Amino acid sequence: MKTIPNRVYLTEDELPKQYYNIAADMPTRPKPYLNPVTKEPVQPDDLAPLFAKELIAQEVSTERYIDIPKQVREIYAKFRPSPLIRAYGLEKALDTPAKIYYKYEGNNPSGSHKLNSAIPQAFYNKAEGVRRLTTETGAGQWGSALSIAAQMFGLECTVYMVRVSYEQKPYRRTLMQTYGANVIASPSTLTNAGRAILEKDPDSLGSLGIAISEAVEDAVMRDDTHYALGSVLNHVILHQTIIGLEAKKQFEKIDEYPDIVIGCNGGGSNFSGCAFPFLHDKLKNGAKTEFVAVEPAACPKLTKGKFAYDYGDTAKMAPIAMMYTLGHDFVPAGIHAGGLRYHGDSALLSQLYHDGYVSAAAVRQTDVFKAAVLFARSEIILPAPESAHAIAYAIQKALECRETGEAKTIFFNLSGHGDFDLAAYEEYLAGRLQDFEYTDEMLEKCFSTLPEID
Amino acid sequence: MKTIPNRVYLTEDELPKQYYNIAADMPTRPKPYLNPVTKEPVQPDDLAPLFAKELIAQEVSTERYIDIPKQVREIYAKFRPSPLIRAYGLEKALDTPAKIYYKYEGNNPSGSHKLNSAIPQAFYNKAEGVRRLTTETGAGQWGSALSIAAQMFGLECTVYMVRVSYEQKPYRRTLMQTYGANVIASPSTLTNAGRAILEKDPDSLGSLGIAISEAVEDAVMRDDTHYALGSVLNHVILHQTIIGLEAKKQFEKIDEYPDIVIGCNGGGSNFSGCAFPFLHDKLKNGAKTEFVAVEPAACPKLTKGKFAYDYGDTAKMAPIAMMYTLGHDFVPAGIHAGGLRYHGDSALLSQLYHDGYVSAAAVRQTDVFKAAVLFARSEIILPAPESAHAIAYAIQKALECRETGEAKTIFFNLSGHGDFDLAAYEEYLAGRLQDFEYTDEMLEKCFSTLPEID
Repeated sequence: MKTIPNRVYLTEDELPKQYYNIAADMPTRPKPYLNPVTKEPVQPDDLAPLFAKELIAQEVSTERYIDIPKQVREIYAKFRPSPLIRAYGLEKALDTPAKIYYKYEGNNPSGSHKLNSAIPQAFYNKAEGVRRLTTETGAGQWGSALSIAAQMFGLECTVYMVRVSYEQKPYRRTLMQTYGANVIASPSTLTNAGRAILEKDPDSLGSLGIAISEAVEDAVMRDDTHYALGSVLNHVILHQTIIGLEAKKQFEKIDEYPDIVIGCNGGGSNFSGCAFPFLHDKLKNGAKTEFVAVEPAACPKLTKGKFAYDYGDTAKMAPIAMMYTLGHDFVPAGIHAGGLRYHGDSALLSQLYHDGYVSAAAVRQTDVFKAAVLFARSEIILPAPESAHAIAYAIQKALECRETGEAKTIFFNLSGHGDFDLAAYEEYLAGRLQDFEYTDEMLEKCFSTLPEID
Repeated sequence: MKTIPNRVYLTEDELPKQYYNIAADMPTRPKPYLNPVTKEPVQPDDLAPLFAKELIAQEVSTERYIDIPKQVREIYAKFRPSPLIRAYGLEKALDTPAKIYYKYEGNNPSGSHKLNSAIPQAFYNKAEGVRRLTTETGAGQWGSALSIAAQMFGLECTVYMVRVSYEQKPYRRTLMQTYGANVIASPSTLTNAGRAILEKDPDSLGSLGIAISEAVEDAVMRDDTHYALGSVLNHVILHQTIIGLEAKKQFEKIDEYPDIVIGCNGGGSNFSGCAFPFLHDKLKNGAKTEFVAVEPAACPKLTKGKFAYDYGDTAKMAPIAMMYTLGHDFVPAGIHAGGLRYHGDSALLSQLYHDGYVSAAAVRQTDVFKAAVLFARSEIILPAPESAHAIAYAIQKALECRETGEAKTIFFNLSGHGDFDLAAYEEYLAGRLQDFEYTDEMLEKCFSTLPEID
């Protein structure tokens, strides 16, 4: 007899009222961000043209818990608390004694966890009198989230969308427009950064780096406008801890606790949001839980990168951060179909990985899609390829349990659905996806771009 | 202060254990289906080559409640019970005293309520030793649902997909393939029906009618294969009552009851699934609730059709049913972007409409998309265009309440999400959608195809 339901829900009343800030509990805090020009530590004022004061305060806060504003919780309540799901179907398909759980963040119109941070970012900007937000987007997950959040608080939103995606993936563009965003193909003629690129190459397909430069320039040039980022930064990760905080309550309800916590890793907010509230227990109470950040073999910053000061962006406009990085010029091999493409990582997660509290694993994309299809067929939900990195590793662990007979409790973050990723699924089903691993030589070349910091 | 949460959930234990069969409570039951060749009443045995015995029994049952098998409830539990949501955002946007609620059926990988019937259909076929299911699909909503359900019970599934959709909407095709279905562009060379079309027109783009003929022929020709239909039939509507049964429990929890129940109307299963459990109270206890089936002005079978015996399909292979119809050759005007294109309607719903227990309204597609965008921006969920027909009418009613000051409780079925409909949203946002209404002359021409039945 089943004693645990398929899904553990929380009521709206049980929605967490505070975010968890791991900076309060870290034995070693991350080194400060450096100004990309002066290479001196960044001061809060340096960030004021880009971010709301409250978000800057969160970026450097060492308070353990930070209140979630009531207005943010009201919007969260339109799609949160998200369910914690027991993967009975997957367990059966794997014939494993392991108990597999996942938190499902795809039940919102942005399709992923990104909305968790877009909402407070929009709120704090609105509260401080900002009228308009800018951001960049590649495939469109973050741009969709910010468009939706801006609409909820009556802010204008301009999204610089990498031109090749703008043209080839019109659906994400239309989604953003439906929520009222102004979507601009990048490079555009609206910014100096865009015009400079177009002068050299009028047919430029754009890149995330260029789109970031345009969004930042747009925000800096206008008093009524701020910029918003969807991962990497401490305040983004702070907001994402809502995932892990809810999950802890849900596990309490069924009197369980994970032995392994798994999340995929791009800029770090997906993994960290899910894992940090549990990592709190390890840092404070010595819990034995294992934490694994899973990245693509095609973008292996934790498993093969360097822990070093590096620029946050290709254009060297963003702050320099101490982090695991593949070098700021790194671009994943063209055959890589999924996201998780950022060259660096969250400073918080990097430090915790460096200090041994978190481990990492790299998975190949054919294994990722194989896991995604198995998951869809056994658990019914179509996962985003990014989230399927976590699934692939969870499956690996569950199969190990089958060998050893251990009934470990495995928990991962299913950060989004795959409705907008069916082109990649098609490539996989047609056998056209290949794997790629970087040689040491290739990586050394990437590292040669790292800045020298005294 | 809010006393009612944004979302009313039920636990897995509260998932209904029986479907509701309105045939038990109808003052006048629908006239029997007729054999399309002999025009004699269809006997259960006539349907045996196509459907599982248990489904045929449900088709003609007059039992009020029919058990939901445990195995079906286990799969339901992967995405049900679905939330009942109070539309606080929409109410605010409309400045209405009305209380608006909706049941959200989009939180599953098929993206709509269709999965509610696909699962029991797959189950009963599996239980009777069927190895393989066939069906047809246009845009792909039903094909996706059946592909998923078949996979859950280890059945093979072949979907005949209208060729123009197969080629122009590859994502739905890939979705079905991800869940293991064999998707065939229709017309195909695999059936006599398909070959006959291709002989006349090798470049045929296909139609739903042709795809039905192929799927039915395929099922009839093979002993191990049955056919599955996604709407119209009594047993499909029976399965969809899970929506309304859950909603009734949810309304009980918050001590509310709808004054108006609204659903969009294609083949009838969306509206009926939501409305029939409430209509029970009207039929048995004289509840004053108003029921409105909302259809596109471009396919106005209830509001402008005839209550007559007509063929279920263009090819005249399906049974003849007494229903509201625009004639079996009817095809909505090309400018119509959404679904809800079926020429006829459920026999159950037709009879209830004819007898005055249900009313109907037709809405124009520009109003539908206007409502859809307002809904997305205020309620955060991106609605399917089909579901947005119900939204458009609910908005109309809520605005009437603003005029009269009445605080009516309006309830509608949000049957699916719009992730796969962004091309239509794009058309709307670009101002390229137009409205269309049929003249009496046009309709008379449609009706001229109705069969003569003694």
